[in-house]
Amino acid sequence: MMTTSTGVLTVRAEHLDAADPLRSYRDLFIGADDPAVVAYLDGNSLGRPTRASAERINSFVTGAWGGRLIRGWDEEWFELPITIGDTLARVALGAARGQTTIGDSTTVLLYKLARGALALRPGRTEIVVDRDNFPTDRYVLESIAGELGLTLRWIESDRRGGVSLDDLKSVVSERTALVVLSHVAYRSGYLVDAAGAARVTREAGALLLLDLCHSVGSVPLELDSWGVDLAVGCTYKYLNGGPGSPAFAYVRAEHQGKFVQPIWGWMGRNNPFAMAQGYEPAPGIRRVISGTPSVLGMLAMQDTLALIDEVGMAAIRAKSVALTEYALELVRTLLFPLGVEIGSPQDSAERGGHVIIDHPRFEAVIETLWRKGVFPDFRAPHGLRLGLSPLSTSFSEVCAGVLAIRDELTA
Amino acid sequence: MMTTSTGVLTVRAEHLDAADPLRSYRDLFIGADDPAVVAYLDGNSLGRPTRASAERINSFVTGAWGGRLIRGWDEEWFELPITIGDTLARVALGAARGQTTIGDSTTVLLYKLARGALALRPGRTEIVVDRDNFPTDRYVLESIAGELGLTLRWIESDRRGGVSLDDLKSVVSERTALVVLSHVAYRSGYLVDAAGAARVTREAGALLLLDLCHSVGSVPLELDSWGVDLAVGCTYKYLNGGPGSPAFAYVRAEHQGKFVQPIWGWMGRNNPFAMAQGYEPAPGIRRVISGTPSVLGMLAMQDTLALIDEVGMAAIRAKSVALTEYALELVRTLLFPLGVEIGSPQDSAERGGHVIIDHPRFEAVIETLWRKGVFPDFRAPHGLRLGLSPLSTSFSEVCAGVLAIRDELTA
Repeated sequence: MMTTSTGVLTVRAEHLDAADPLRSYRDLFIGADDPAVVAYLDGNSLGRPTRASAERINSFVTGAWGGRLIRGWDEEWFELPITIGDTLARVALGAARGQTTIGDSTTVLLYKLARGALALRPGRTEIVVDRDNFPTDRYVLESIAGELGLTLRWIESDRRGGVSLDDLKSVVSERTALVVLSHVAYRSGYLVDAAGAARVTREAGALLLLDLCHSVGSVPLELDSWGVDLAVGCTYKYLNGGPGSPAFAYVRAEHQGKFVQPIWGWMGRNNPFAMAQGYEPAPGIRRVISGTPSVLGMLAMQDTLALIDEVGMAAIRAKSVALTEYALELVRTLLFPLGVEIGSPQDSAERGGHVIIDHPRFEAVIETLWRKGVFPDFRAPHGLRLGLSPLSTSFSEVCAGVLAIRDELTA
Repeated sequence: MMTTSTGVLTVRAEHLDAADPLRSYRDLFIGADDPAVVAYLDGNSLGRPTRASAERINSFVTGAWGGRLIRGWDEEWFELPITIGDTLARVALGAARGQTTIGDSTTVLLYKLARGALALRPGRTEIVVDRDNFPTDRYVLESIAGELGLTLRWIESDRRGGVSLDDLKSVVSERTALVVLSHVAYRSGYLVDAAGAARVTREAGALLLLDLCHSVGSVPLELDSWGVDLAVGCTYKYLNGGPGSPAFAYVRAEHQGKFVQPIWGWMGRNNPFAMAQGYEPAPGIRRVISGTPSVLGMLAMQDTLALIDEVGMAAIRAKSVALTEYALELVRTLLFPLGVEIGSPQDSAERGGHVIIDHPRFEAVIETLWRKGVFPDFRAPHGLRLGLSPLSTSFSEVCAGVLAIRDELTA
């Protein structure tokens, strides 16, 4: 009986894969054919490398770095944060040129953008953020609030949902300087109404800083038309930039003239090679840059950006929704009887590219799952997060993953 | 006549190479045999890649990243900033374990360490720095002084020299919170008496932050015994980490208990995976980390650290001194008659691993030199900086470079 239903499920997954218009993209990733990896469900913690990136990185070391040497800075690298930023903006952010740069880590960029934003709203005393936002976002704002003598206004959002517009309206006021929200919640996968949040924030005279870590490359973004003021995001999840690849920052054009961030480095100075006395921010988005950005770290993301350009965010979102719908359907069928609960929104319009499921025994089974080649990640207190990467995750992989979770809970 | 002297010089360079105990190390670098690169004299802007690094990076992409995937964080990457930091400390910094981490860019680390240091000296009102320090150091401190309402006390040092102990004594007082010096001046190559500077600073009750960008891997360091409080440095010069590879930070053990930097990220929090409310710095040097560090960016430096471990900093310094002495000798012989002046200390005890020479026509000839495969870098107003990397620069290369400069000035 159990065997039959597993067979039926597996065949259905194969049918879904066969009908998937993006199925061929999976073959472009290294390790997608690795028999030891039964189900990689953690692409939203670390995306897989593409074969193109392996080639690009290899030829970079011997050719660009080893061959062009210092000339590389003049020829390409000095502008690379901005040229990649512009590509990212075009294919995935819904943003015009000149507003996006690759830079430091998400944490450092968040600090720089939040500090820069707060300086644009002097006299206002509050920063709004939700209690279930990603730790770095909370900690960075906690530090800044302490530095500047501001108050953190916490939204106590539902851990299985996220920040609604009503939540936001209830705390935003004429005291608010800055609102910081994750576009897709790192735990629940809740998808914030970013356009609505931008409107509410702007009407209060405050600025909105969106953390796009869990949406970029998975959920279509329209930063310019939504009216988002600032954004940061990482490139090692759905953009497959590699472990710790540098993050990106977006500063809306209308703010750039007055926007100054606090870490004044020579690479973000006007006319940097004059090495002159006194800092003057460079024109445009370059002023977000501090020191020398990691060129090696910027290489791999470019290959995924090229794939996104080819496929389009609409098709990627369609696959993403299909993957999470399918995962939730399997969870309902196979895991509800075992007491598993869903910690993500049921409606795909309110959900990003991952889902989280809860069961008291999940902390006990995660190690065995990993040992068997099934890789969700664990989020305390007892959640398994299934991160589904539209370009590299197959329906069969999702099926194998949920079946393995069932097997562990029934073992 | 010209031909003869060139021939004699070339033969002498070949003899020096033959007698060089480190000569075989040059072959470990990619591109050292590239006939299009006649003289690479910019290893202090961007070091060459080793062949070992090319292999390491290639196998990382397919094996560790593509194969181990998210497991890599548990297996190695989470600790990598500290394990590499400890190796760096042992082979090149003269520092015991637990005080060094790889992190962000030099600029960001400088910001974090300076802010953290200033919080350890509340009530003091001045930061001491020299006018000819590297731009990022000046700009970061300018920003911080503005933020915190502190005064920058400028040392007006000699551009062809650097900050002497007398210079330092003349400005350090009971008002001084922090002194920031480059161990080797980026322009002149002047080598600060770091132990003396640490003593003068400590006697005034202030803290010393050393910028090691132009000394690490070239000049032996004894941070622990010198009594240096904090240090930062980059890894893409003499450590050959690759363009924009992440920098390192040192915080003396005695300060770590109270040291808190301002960019509070989850990776530097105590028990980060609890993702708990409220920031608490991690124990030890990990508290310097903010967000996810670039793993790809940390790979290559490890191969040069292994070479330094094998060779020892004493032998590296001996070669470095021999290279700069030889370069200056060639400059005196070949370029003094053409009006070239030396902008670096004459005494090798006061000089790091590079020299700078000045001539009004250098800005006009740099492009031609590069086109001919001779790569010093240009520093305004009219300096050519010759960066000599002990493990990868040959005496013949120095000779060819200076001859090419002579040819351009006499063309």
